[in-house]
Amino acid sequence: MLDEQKCRSNISKINDTAAAARIELRPHFKTHVSHEIGNWFRETGISKIAVSSLKMAEYFAAAGWDDILLAIPLNLRTHKRINRLASKLQLSLLVEDIQTLFSLQALLSNPVSVSIKLDTGYRRTGIPVEESQHERILQLARAIQDHPLTNFAGTVSHAGHSYHCRELLEIEQVHKKSLAALEQAAQLLYSQHPELIHSVGDTPTCSTMKSFGAANELRAGNYVFYDLTQAAIGSCDTSEIALAMACPVIAIHADRQELIIHGGSVHFAQDKIEDAVSPDPIHGLVVPFEGSRWGSPTGSYLKKLSQEHGTVHLCKDDITRYKPGDLIFILPVHACTCANLMGNYLTTQGKYISRMPTH
Amino acid sequence: MLDEQKCRSNISKINDTAAAARIELRPHFKTHVSHEIGNWFRETGISKIAVSSLKMAEYFAAAGWDDILLAIPLNLRTHKRINRLASKLQLSLLVEDIQTLFSLQALLSNPVSVSIKLDTGYRRTGIPVEESQHERILQLARAIQDHPLTNFAGTVSHAGHSYHCRELLEIEQVHKKSLAALEQAAQLLYSQHPELIHSVGDTPTCSTMKSFGAANELRAGNYVFYDLTQAAIGSCDTSEIALAMACPVIAIHADRQELIIHGGSVHFAQDKIEDAVSPDPIHGLVVPFEGSRWGSPTGSYLKKLSQEHGTVHLCKDDITRYKPGDLIFILPVHACTCANLMGNYLTTQGKYISRMPTH
Repeated sequence: MLDEQKCRSNISKINDTAAAARIELRPHFKTHVSHEIGNWFRETGISKIAVSSLKMAEYFAAAGWDDILLAIPLNLRTHKRINRLASKLQLSLLVEDIQTLFSLQALLSNPVSVSIKLDTGYRRTGIPVEESQHERILQLARAIQDHPLTNFAGTVSHAGHSYHCRELLEIEQVHKKSLAALEQAAQLLYSQHPELIHSVGDTPTCSTMKSFGAANELRAGNYVFYDLTQAAIGSCDTSEIALAMACPVIAIHADRQELIIHGGSVHFAQDKIEDAVSPDPIHGLVVPFEGSRWGSPTGSYLKKLSQEHGTVHLCKDDITRYKPGDLIFILPVHACTCANLMGNYLTTQGKYISRMPTH
Repeated sequence: MLDEQKCRSNISKINDTAAAARIELRPHFKTHVSHEIGNWFRETGISKIAVSSLKMAEYFAAAGWDDILLAIPLNLRTHKRINRLASKLQLSLLVEDIQTLFSLQALLSNPVSVSIKLDTGYRRTGIPVEESQHERILQLARAIQDHPLTNFAGTVSHAGHSYHCRELLEIEQVHKKSLAALEQAAQLLYSQHPELIHSVGDTPTCSTMKSFGAANELRAGNYVFYDLTQAAIGSCDTSEIALAMACPVIAIHADRQELIIHGGSVHFAQDKIEDAVSPDPIHGLVVPFEGSRWGSPTGSYLKKLSQEHGTVHLCKDDITRYKPGDLIFILPVHACTCANLMGNYLTTQGKYISRMPTH
């Protein structure tokens, strides 16, 4: 279930942050993966997007998006589809090693933009911004620029370790440290390449910070829906979460303060948060549904998931609220994976919204 | 990727267990959810199946399966589809409370079989088999039998707590205790209902135990593929795991003994095991692919998942084995959720096998 109003308000909020910081916005569309929700961004003036799979790039290309960053290191096995896509639109790719770049250049038949993936502290992908790596960064930049089909665009980095934060001060520290690393890389490249795009993006920093140093492009995405992970980090309030799961109640065990839903790991995945109101891990928070919208968490929570079953712990006030056959509404821990598993959306106003088919 | 030979051999193994124990087999099809793999069962003489969603029941009905147990407490909201299905085949449903039964009976237009869901120790769904609940069980049995459209079939129980076991002795204890509870219920019902089916089923006990007490139907399902969870429990050896994920390598960080795959929580979910060879949680074990099959785990493992990226820890021997653009093969922690996320199978012999569409 989607609350369109909250969703549009989340979109506006980050638009405002970007405008105030005078930074370009390239929202990441991996969270919603929907033509219609993409249009809600477009209506606010967004024209560039990021995605995390080639399939998503193809999906959004079909809806007329013509400036797409494929924000995951290049998978060389997909070069034919990359060429096809690059013949139609402004496609930007990431590389982090020169051999992969050379392989790409040998396979390209259409021009693409290429950015260097930098590691500003997350330690997942990218070249770590350290003095020992400066020459490697410069060499890669030259090799991109030296080929007629690869236009050197700039750098892409992702402070994904902000997801471990649990308060504003921690987010600020991650933000400052990763911007300091980016500043170093930007200075390194400046004399040869004065007009680069330095793209950063993670929902926690975009939701809470006001300035972005050397970065001139924001690439966050989860904020379109938010979720309990983001609420735990401090990126949002639970009232801003725009997505809820509507699950049929299939059994009540009032003596254990539990009810069972048809809703398991094939609907919620196994994401959980551990630092909240209960001794159990939390896979979701129950919200009451009244009129045409859901309210604040009641204190009941989804505590356990099998493949198709979920076990909800009921707070005292909720024990007599539900019976088998009812729907119960649950805010998810990770909106991206839930939305991916559910496939489509229904708004609180009753409108169906489709998503990219998963397979 | 599916190893058809392993898969067929896993099917045969549990067929043999059931035959030796003189117990009927009703394999659970929630793991593979594929017409073609269903046929592999059918070729060995299987004619009854269990599923865990109405959609799966409809999917297998379309392939001619005509005796299907919907092994999850009834979702009353789906009564129209239940009636449609019940008009075509022998459909069996589970109930655990009398109000839901009465609601069902008021909505039925075609006969169905109904079993009582018993809780023999797992504490998820079902009526706990305790003396205080005996009257409730008998009352429910009478109410099922008293209605012309609900045929009382027996009981269904699931010792899902066997999933917490980590050695044979523990599985045996869970098995004995849950069979003792079942025995109690069977005796309770015997005088009024001497010809009941008592269905039990979980892959750990079916894979390791030889006798099943009062149970006369086995309902396991995961054994068709097995996975690292089952290997950790002791249900199988890793050499029996019939499913592997083939993931493109997109970055190498040899200095950290890591490589990055395009393979994240939208492919593997977030299932993990914690009790194996490493300090990290394990989301999968790397296996080498040679000729037309994969070998034994090398010691490299999938240690971290974001939405689309996975981080593999490389053992020393694997550090120089891979380069970007290669495929790496990974045994999954939970075959059911991975197969659900991937959508289709490719056998090691190069044959595509389709699965029920997810959405």
